[in-house]
This record gives sequence, C-alpha cells and structure tokens, in this order.
Amino acid sequence: MDPNATQHSHCLEMAMEVHQVVPPPHKTTLHKLKARLKETFFPDDPLRQFKGQPLKTKLTLGAQYFFPILQWGPKYSLKLFKSDLVSGLTIASLAIPQGISYAKLANLPPIVGLYSSFVPPLVYAVLGSSRDLAVGPVSIASLVMGSMLRQEVSPTADPVLFLQLAFSSTFFAGLFQASLGILRLGFIIDFLSKAILIGFMAGAAIIVSLQQLKSLLGITDFTNQMGLIPVMTSVFHSIHEWSWQTILTGICFLVLLLLARHVSIKRPKLFWVSAGAPLFCVIISTLLVFAIKAQNHGISVIGKLQQGINPPSWNMLCFHGTHLGLVMKTGLITGILSLTEGIAVGRTFAALKNYKVDGNKEMMAIGFMNMVGSSTSCYVTTGAFSRSAVNNNAGAKTAVSNVVMSVTVMVTLLFLMPLFQYTPNVVLGAIIVTAVIGLIDLPAAYNIWKIDKFDFLVMLSAFMGVLFISVQGGLALAVGLSTFKILMQITRPKTVMLGKIPGTEIYRNLHQYKEAVRVPGFLILSIEAPINFANITYLNERTLRWIEEEEDNIKEQFSLRFLILEMSAVSAIDTSGISLFKELKATLEKKSVELVLVNPLAEVIEKLKKVDEATDFIQADSLFLTVGEAIASLSSTMKAQSSTFHG
Amino acid sequence: MDPNATQHSHCLEMAMEVHQVVPPPHKTTLHKLKARLKETFFPDDPLRQFKGQPLKTKLTLGAQYFFPILQWGPKYSLKLFKSDLVSGLTIASLAIPQGISYAKLANLPPIVGLYSSFVPPLVYAVLGSSRDLAVGPVSIASLVMGSMLRQEVSPTADPVLFLQLAFSSTFFAGLFQASLGILRLGFIIDFLSKAILIGFMAGAAIIVSLQQLKSLLGITDFTNQMGLIPVMTSVFHSIHEWSWQTILTGICFLVLLLLARHVSIKRPKLFWVSAGAPLFCVIISTLLVFAIKAQNHGISVIGKLQQGINPPSWNMLCFHGTHLGLVMKTGLITGILSLTEGIAVGRTFAALKNYKVDGNKEMMAIGFMNMVGSSTSCYVTTGAFSRSAVNNNAGAKTAVSNVVMSVTVMVTLLFLMPLFQYTPNVVLGAIIVTAVIGLIDLPAAYNIWKIDKFDFLVMLSAFMGVLFISVQGGLALAVGLSTFKILMQITRPKTVMLGKIPGTEIYRNLHQYKEAVRVPGFLILSIEAPINFANITYLNERTLRWIEEEEDNIKEQFSLRFLILEMSAVSAIDTSGISLFKELKATLEKKSVELVLVNPLAEVIEKLKKVDEATDFIQADSLFLTVGEAIASLSSTMKAQSSTFHG
Repeated sequence: MDPNATQHSHCLEMAMEVHQVVPPPHKTTLHKLKARLKETFFPDDPLRQFKGQPLKTKLTLGAQYFFPILQWGPKYSLKLFKSDLVSGLTIASLAIPQGISYAKLANLPPIVGLYSSFVPPLVYAVLGSSRDLAVGPVSIASLVMGSMLRQEVSPTADPVLFLQLAFSSTFFAGLFQASLGILRLGFIIDFLSKAILIGFMAGAAIIVSLQQLKSLLGITDFTNQMGLIPVMTSVFHSIHEWSWQTILTGICFLVLLLLARHVSIKRPKLFWVSAGAPLFCVIISTLLVFAIKAQNHGISVIGKLQQGINPPSWNMLCFHGTHLGLVMKTGLITGILSLTEGIAVGRTFAALKNYKVDGNKEMMAIGFMNMVGSSTSCYVTTGAFSRSAVNNNAGAKTAVSNVVMSVTVMVTLLFLMPLFQYTPNVVLGAIIVTAVIGLIDLPAAYNIWKIDKFDFLVMLSAFMGVLFISVQGGLALAVGLSTFKILMQITRPKTVMLGKIPGTEIYRNLHQYKEAVRVPGFLILSIEAPINFANITYLNERTLRWIEEEEDNIKEQFSLRFLILEMSAVSAIDTSGISLFKELKATLEKKSVELVLVNPLAEVIEKLKKVDEATDFIQADSLFLTVGEAIASLSSTMKAQSSTFHG
Repeated sequence: MDPNATQHSHCLEMAMEVHQVVPPPHKTTLHKLKARLKETFFPDDPLRQFKGQPLKTKLTLGAQYFFPILQWGPKYSLKLFKSDLVSGLTIASLAIPQGISYAKLANLPPIVGLYSSFVPPLVYAVLGSSRDLAVGPVSIASLVMGSMLRQEVSPTADPVLFLQLAFSSTFFAGLFQASLGILRLGFIIDFLSKAILIGFMAGAAIIVSLQQLKSLLGITDFTNQMGLIPVMTSVFHSIHEWSWQTILTGICFLVLLLLARHVSIKRPKLFWVSAGAPLFCVIISTLLVFAIKAQNHGISVIGKLQQGINPPSWNMLCFHGTHLGLVMKTGLITGILSLTEGIAVGRTFAALKNYKVDGNKEMMAIGFMNMVGSSTSCYVTTGAFSRSAVNNNAGAKTAVSNVVMSVTVMVTLLFLMPLFQYTPNVVLGAIIVTAVIGLIDLPAAYNIWKIDKFDFLVMLSAFMGVLFISVQGGLALAVGLSTFKILMQITRPKTVMLGKIPGTEIYRNLHQYKEAVRVPGFLILSIEAPINFANITYLNERTLRWIEEEEDNIKEQFSLRFLILEMSAVSAIDTSGISLFKELKATLEKKSVELVLVNPLAEVIEKLKKVDEATDFIQADSLFLTVGEAIASLSSTMKAQSSTFHG
C-alpha cells in the first residue's frame, strides 16, 4: 500500500473527530433587545471615544461632536486661510450666477437664490464636519420644489403665497433632515441607490434643460407642466414667439460655457476656467445688453432687484391651512433629495482625503441649516456636487471657504445688486443647462448595464418615470422596484446543492465547482437567506422537489438516507421558519429520510430548542459543525448498521 | 518529539494545499433570466411529469391537472361513497345553520348563505385537489365583506344595491384569486404569516362576537360600526332595549353549544356532538318559538324566506359606477383572506394524509368557484377550517362529500325553507359565537411569545389593529410591520467575527464558540446577507469599526495585516455592493491592510470581475476557497516575507 495513502486515511480519521455545535450562552430578552437596537441605530458606536474619559474631556468631546468648528477652529492658521480665501472666492464666483439661476428654476425671485448662498453656508461652517462641502441651492431640489408647489399655487398669480410655501417647505425639509439624524434613521436615504440617482438625475437634467427652453428661445407663454411631452408640445406651439436675437445670444454663451467646461474636464488644473465662466458670461452679457439696449430688442432681462441682506421670514412660515399637506410632502421629498446629495458629496470627498464624515451628524447639520434658512428668507440648500468639486480643486482646507463665499455674497447683496438689472435671462438659462449636463453620467450607466441588468432596469425606470410621469413618480417607481427586488430575494432565497471536492473535506456548490461530486445517500443543501414567513412555502416546495428528483435519479442501492441542511447562512429565523422545520421533519420521516442540520447560528439553535421539548430537534446526532464531519459520522453509523444487519 | 505531533503537522501541510476558487461557467443574460424566472414562478416545476411522455398521455395529464376529478373519479368506488355520504350529511347539518348565520354577519339575506353552500361546493368538487376541504361561507370573510361594504351603502336602506355590491365583490375576489394562481403569484398570501393570522383571527372573533350582542341581547337600534369601543358604547346606551327573554334563550343555547364543543374537543370521536349541535339548536328553538308564539314576546325571528334554488345574478354584477373602487378593494381583501384560509386548510389536511395540494392550482379552483358563485347569487366562499375538520373526522375520502352536502342544501332550499320562518335570531347569534371562539388560539399565541418576541409584536398589532382601528387597518399594520422587519434584516445584516477552533481548520463565530481563538494579524468577518444598496453604508461603517477596534486592541507586533471576508452567505450583490468593495479596498490600502475574499458565490465573482479590468479584484492571491486555506497560505507568505526582510 502506498504510504501516502495510509497517511491520508489517518488524516481523514483525525478529521472525523466530531466537534460539538455549541448552544449559545444564554442572554435575556432585554439584553438581546439592547444589542439589536445598538446594532440597528448605533453601528458606528459614536460614544466609543467617550468611554473611560474624565468628565471634562467628555464635555469637550461632546461640544466638539455638536460643533465641529471647536475641533478644527483652535488649530486654524494663516496658511490654511490663504487656501480657503482663494477657494472661497472661486466658489462665490460660481455661487452668485448659479444662485440666481436656480432660484428662477424654483420659480422664486432671483434674490432668494443669493439669500440662500449667504446664511446657510455660515451655519454649516459651524455645524458641518465636511471640509469640502460648498453649500448653497442645488438644481434638483430647486426643480422639485418649484414643480411640486406649482401644482397648487401659481408663482405668477400669487407670488407671496408661493414664497410662503417655499419657506415652509424648506422648514419641513430641515426638520425632516434633522429628525433623520437625531433618530439615527439615516439608512432611509440608502434606499435612493446609486442606480436610482443616476437615472433620476439624468431625467431631471433633461427636464431642467427643457424648462430653460423658455429663456433660451425667448418664449413668454410657456407651459406650467414639467413632462417631456407637454413641454415639447408647448415649445412647438409657440414657435411664432421664438426670438432670433435671444436664440443667437443663447447659443453663443452656451458654446462658451460648454467649451470652458470641456477645458476644465480635460485639464483639471484649469478648473478655474469653468468655475469663472458663468460669472464672466453674466458680466459680459450684462454689459452688452446695457451697451446696445438689447432689452428693447426682444431680449428679456432680470429687472430691478432689491438690495440688502436677508430679511427675516419666520412670520411667513405656515403650519396650518389648506396647503399644509403639500408643504410637508414637498419638504419631505426635497429634504430627502438634497440630503442624499449632501451626504454623498461629503462622503466622497472625505474618502478622497481620508477623513471621516458621520452621516447622522451631517444630517443634523444640514437639517438645522435649512431650518435656520427657512426663517431668513432662504429656500432649501445642501452641499452641491459641482461646486464642492471646484472648492476642492481650488484648494479648500476647511469650512472657512464657505464663510469667504458667504461674505462675498453678502457684499454682492449689499452693494452690487443694481448691476444685475440688465443681466439677460438667456444667460441664466445657458448657465443652468451647462450645470445640469454634468448630471448625465453615461459611463456610469453603461457600467451598471455591464454589472447588473436589474439595477439598470431600476435606473431606467427612474429616468423614464421622471421624464414621462413626474419627478416624485419616477422616484417612487424606482424605489418601489428596488425594494421589491430585495423582498423577492427573501421570498425566493437561493438554495444550493453541495458536493464534495475530491481529496478534501470541503463541500461546495455543485453547479459552480464541476469537479465536486455528490455523496451517495446524502442530499446536501445550503440555504442562503434568513428563513421567515415570506419564504417557508417556497423552501418547503423546493426542498421536496430536490428530494423527489433525487429519488427519481438515484439507484436503489444508494437510496436517500439523509437530508443535510447547511445553515451557516441562515442569519435569522422566525416562528414560521421554526414551523417549516417541524413540517419538514414530519414529511421526511414518512420517506424515512433523516434531517441533519449543520452549523446553525446561535439564534436558530436557541429558537429550535424552544419549539417543543418533546420532539427535541437539537439532538446531538442530527447536529454537526461542518458538512464534512456530518457525513463522516453518519456514514460510519450507516456502515455499522448495515454490517450489523448483514451479520 | 511526539510522533502524533509530526503526523499532525504533516496533515496540516496537506491541508495547506490551496484549492482554487473556480469562476462559474459562463451563462448568457437570457439564460440567467430564464433560470431566475423559473425559480421565481415555477419552484415546484409543475411540468416535470409531462416530460418525455407521448402526446396522448400529455393531454390526459393536462386534463387531470385542470380537472382533478378526472384523476380520482374513474377509481371511485361504492365503499368510498359510503364514507363520503356520512361525512357529507354531517357537514350539511353544520353548513345549513352556519350558512344562514354567516350571511347575516355579512348583512346579507340569510338565504344567500344557503345559496353559497350549494353551487360553490359543486364547482370545487370538479376543480379542487384537496380531498378534505368543506366549501362554504366563512366567518372572517363574511365579517370583512359586510363591514367594508357598509362603509358606503346601508344594507337596510338599500338592500338591493348592497346585494349587487356583495356579488360584484365576490366576482372580483374570485378574479383576483384565480389571477394569483394563473400568474403564479401565490407567494403574496405568504405575507399573511401565521403570527398575523393568529392575532387577526382572535381580533376578528371578538369583533364578530360583539356584533352578535345585537341578537343575543335583542337590541334593535344597533351601531353600524365594528370597533370595540363604538360597539360597547352602543350596547350600553341601548340598555333599555335589552330583552330578558332573548337574553335567557341566548344563554341557554350558548351554554348548550359550548358544552357540545367541549365534549368534542375532549373526545375527538364524539365530533358529531358539536357538528350536530347547531342544527339541533335551530330545530329545538324553532319548535319552541312556534309552540309558544315567542315572536310576540320580544324574540325576533328570521321571518319568511324565499323558496327555490339559486337565481342567476350575473345581471347584478356592476363593473362601473361610483362604488367600483370599494367593490374592488373589498374583493381584494376578502379574496386574499378567504384564499389564505382555504389554502392553509388544504395544506394542513394534505400534510396530515400525506398527499399533495398544489397551491397555485388551488387558487385557480377557489377563484373560479367564486366567479361562478358571483353569477349564481353566492357570496364569497372558501374551505372553512372548522367544517373541514368535521369533514375529515367524519371520514370523508373525496370531494364527493361536498357534493352530498350540496345536494342536501339543495333539498333544503327546495322544500324546507318555510321551516326556518320561526328560527329565532338569538340562536344564530349563539351559533356564530361558538364557531368563532375556536379562532382564538391562546396556546399558539403563547408559543409565539416564547419563540420570537417580534412575531408576538406583529401578532399583537394585528389583534389590536382589528379591535381599535379596522379590520383592513389591522391587517395592513401587521403586514407592514413584518415587511419592515424583513427590510431591516437586509439593512442591518449580521456580520460575525470568526475564530479558529483549536486543533481544527474550522472557523466559527467567536461569540458562540468560546473556545475559538483569533488569529493574530487577521480579522475574519463573515457577512450574512446579500450585499446591496440598502446595506452598503452600514457594512462599510461596521467593517471600519471592527478594524479600528482591532487596531486599538492589538499589540504592535501583530498589527492587522489581512481582512478576510467569508462570503459564503452573500447570496447576491448589486452595483452598489460592488462599489462597496472598491471603496473598502481603497480604504484598507491606506491602512496597509489587505482585503481577502473567501468562497464568494458564482454571481459575486462574475460581477466583481466586471468592475474594472485594471484594478483586478479577483487576483488568485486574494481569493480562497476556505478561511483555513486563506490563513495557511497568507501566514506562510507573511513568514517568508518577514524572514527575507530580516535576512
């Protein structure tokens, strides 16, 4: 005999030594509840740093937790300020034209966009923990707020009420955002997956661009609706209104802005080209209009703007009346959308620069910022991706860049407002179109198609939904679809048939590992999901079908004796799951097949033990630590039995 | 040196031979989609028996599939008929008083309850595959239909419209049930878990019993509402209406019926005592009323009933108009409730007698039965648990017992209707109360409390919801809660730290197996759920926290070198999950920790491969088949490196 073979069999014998599945140490229900709640709401264990510290340190750490400025403020230096000054001025040059444009997108007076670039950045500088977030109004939230409020109130017929509703929605958005943070329910924004956002933002970009056709073509009688079809219909119905002067100006500035964008994409060092372009265009076009009195030649301009900083607006918030439902709904949706953008931006740059942003804390910061904003004439704001990227490129080191931007906007509000009187609307339209074109991310969409077809479907449904149903409808459709997918994964969990990889004690998926072989007399299934009410019927049917197929295939000699369920992946079980095992065991007994469990987790063992002391599921001879040990032990029992029988 | 130790180390060396993780055989998207759809909608593979059969056999099998009567009919014998005759007569004696009572519960004329015990059982006998189901009206569906329709139409003020709506709801219930079966969406009823049903039925039993206070106390001016509070208020407000004659009669018959029930529970052989008791009470009370002219002494009676079998009612179905929404909603809810009961009853007795009931086929049978019923003056019917139990106890062998019952009801309808004229309503109330008391299952509730506290909460919410909100409200609350739990399991998946069980190559949960030890330099985590958009943020945060804690604890010497993720339980991954790995790898690189994957499933490998050909996730040196092999291989590399370094 080959000595290697001897040794091998010796090894197998050693491996056959059976290890016990240990029932878990007992824990009280209260203890388990506490552990569960901690895992659910405090997975990042925010209090860890407080442990074992003296009271004074605890207080300092607590203050720093709520006001991150106390953390970086004391270490602030002139060198850092130089960087922040440059980046702050850069984003201000972007924030001023974008603020005006986005306010118009939300059907609000242009000056509200500037107000919103003044107060919220200051609040964020104190509360926020991201060093790169550039705070201000963003296109998506502006679009959604404008389109939702317009369903009930016309911004032209009743501008004061519309403004009231906008501020009130902003308040609810902030309240909702802060609550998510305080209640540690931040995972809710995770349901807006990357795939949904890519589809949604592309759709919204198209919707936003279509809205700009009003300014770009110089149409005065434009539809109130947002969908692709009504807007295109309206555009071609009013073809007689198109103004060639406006179109020409629009095309010129659009080309200029897109070129600047292209340059900055190709050469990231020239980021200031695209960052400065909007302000440059505004200045040039304003001068041009003023010089040639173009407002008299069919080019519409912004008109007179109020001067001075934000007036208080808390008296404009309404918490009752017929529009309360709309205001809350608008707040909820714009709140969640802007939160998603802000958190994603914060996380992206934090990962890039290797510091940490606490999601729940950021939600509180953004929420509080919007609540303060709503009472100082600001509408909903967050960290904008494009502006934050510019901020980062321009070398921002801390939130002081937001303060610099804010001060610049304040100066503008106090002294420079008359200059915008002759700014043509068409330039604002071109600025918006250039800004939102960046939201269409075709390579990412292609990547999703390559990796996961269902995610692509979700993306497509968000995209199509936004274009053809409505902004909220598209979101709801996509979120519903992806939640449904998760539920289907639970309802139809994977069950995999395992086989032995020759020469090892490893058992793996027979379909994946072609060399794996089945063990006669055994059916080894691995269940890959928690077992609960939603899947017990399926698991029962599927298991019985495996067994029937097995009975059909197998030769008389090796009739099926054991069903081994590998339970490592069954992370939880409920009462329905327990009843599945009872039922399965009863069915199997009628077929004289024995049920064997491998490596059930603590929770599962504990619950199976409680079923019925009489039936005793957890007998030592039907519970093993690994499939290998189960088969080795059961085979030897089988052989012993049959030799007794034949003897 | 101990020779055993040498041999052991030799074994370890053999074990250290590393096995490759095999990428799965390539499949096209279409192929995968087909396989997925098959697993989702045809887990029981109903076409299996057709494979490889000649055309004639296929046709016969097909006919037998749709009409199970063709399967058992030809083999039917006189001996079987004897059993079916006895059981059929037994359930008829139960069906007649229950039919009248349940129709009153649904605010329908009593005779509709008898109609519903005539036609549907005949249809089911041809289409159904259960041998024990006794078909007819049931209490829960009757209650729900009555209470929902009463929201919009008064059964006393507009009885014809009410009847129309009831038949139309029945039609939609049938349509919905049949569609679920045809579209193979039967898993939807799984969302009414056992826990929900126990709570719901107990609540409904109380609601139903409270409604009987009207007949039991002899109140004429009774509330239209169903909730616990309004009914109790109404009962005590009309205390002056209470009729002592009625109350006395009620108590007598209630005691009689409950005694009969008690006898049958204690001695299952005496099942006929409780089965016959209702009819006995009806006969006795009718004779009594007739003899002493009790209807003139404050005891209300059913009154004159129409004679003759079911009139057609297809002209009464309404598919348009103001009540269409209500009718469809009522159909949906009563349909799903009665389906759940029917399927559960069928499965229970099939498991008991070891035959198979195909859920989807049963749904088609029950659905078609209700659609036929709705056009022959029947309201919604299904297999009732109590009656089926009696049927089974009385020795029913096939669906012929339903035919016998149906014929008996027909005879009653044709000739015996005048006899019911003097049946007092109070007896019907007592019959209903006795029937629904069996729905309150305290031992099952206690068992749920013992095994799973969350399931108990779900049960309680269904119970309380039915009592204090509404029947649909309670259901929705409980289903929402249990779906939320499933989503939370996905959002907060278990991650478990593994350790080595000494003397083996087995790695198991450190918290469960106290003897397991950690391997210095390695952090081994097992992820116990599919990775997707809903949990990547959590998994990222949680993993980083594990690593940070590890870095805090571990001594300089054994600084963390490898993060091993055991992926066996990750049954699926989406694009967000893929991005988690990219991000995690980048973060870990900054901490100079290497990411190693163990036993990822085919789907996961495939998707990781597609991420980005450049980064190359799936390098052979970071992918292993078992944790043991990964650690063995990586440790030896580590040692080789450090010896080179020191050399």
